Amino acid sequence: MKKLAIALAFAASATAIAATAQVKPEDQVKQRRSAYAVMGFNFANLAAMAQEKKPYNKEEAGRSADLVAALSDYPRGHFGAGTDKGETKARAEIWQNRADFDAKMDKMITATKALPQAARADLPTLKKAVAEAGGTCKACHDDYRAK
Amino acid sequence: MKKLAIALAFAASATAIAATAQVKPEDQVKQRRSAYAVMGFNFANLAAMAQEKKPYNKEEAGRSADLVAALSDYPRGHFGAGTDKGETKARAEIWQNRADFDAKMDKMITATKALPQAARADLPTLKKAVAEAGGTCKACHDDYRAK
Repeated sequence: MKKLAIALAFAASATAIAATAQVKPEDQVKQRRSAYAVMGFNFANLAAMAQEKKPYNKEEAGRSADLVAALSDYPRGHFGAGTDKGETKARAEIWQNRADFDAKMDKMITATKALPQAARADLPTLKKAVAEAGGTCKACHDDYRAK
Repeated sequence: MKKLAIALAFAASATAIAATAQVKPEDQVKQRRSAYAVMGFNFANLAAMAQEKKPYNKEEAGRSADLVAALSDYPRGHFGAGTDKGETKARAEIWQNRADFDAKMDKMITATKALPQAARADLPTLKKAVAEAGGTCKACHDDYRAK
């Protein structure tokens, strides 16, 4: 596998990180924040269409919805021990009320997985799905994200 | 749509950004960097399995591959004018050799879209697909990413 070794030489330090059983807290924070950044931007795009602040475009809405849906279950695995510190807005309450936090995450995941189909249907369907998903984002932010 | 308005009040500033025709350069940089962060981490996970630095796990490999594939065509739209500045490793050569940069992007996108199926096949198939995709990452990094 010489070709593999050459192709991956650039990723040597990264693969070393990935090979460890426990992802370092700062890497977990970076991963969840990166995912939320892409989700937030693309959900905002859907919201702008839903609020008629920009024209509804089925193809563009579909792409944004795909990204939100694809990433929505990713942050959950990156709220491990020690990730309440550093560059994060995560509140300590997450780890005190973990079952509630996880339940709110589940609702968000379910609602966002419905976005791709809704985005490709029509504007009224998108509006409904965006309101539903937006409510699940807000519910978690209200309790678990620092202002 | 009162429910929609309430659900999205939290996203007000974000939707204002999304509603503008041109995404601000710093937002473009943030979006592409966030996407690359998630892609890099998950590709490194696949690479660690391909290099047998960690055990091959079909389900985990599939999830990582899905994320890489879902995000791979996202950064491309966030290399607009003025995004060569700020917190970025993007080299000025991107905008001087845009056709070549785009062609390298296309190759990466094609190679990464093959990862989900390969990751769910078997280890030899994953190794081949990871080497292929890793080569397309490296080709672009060599020419267009600052050390």
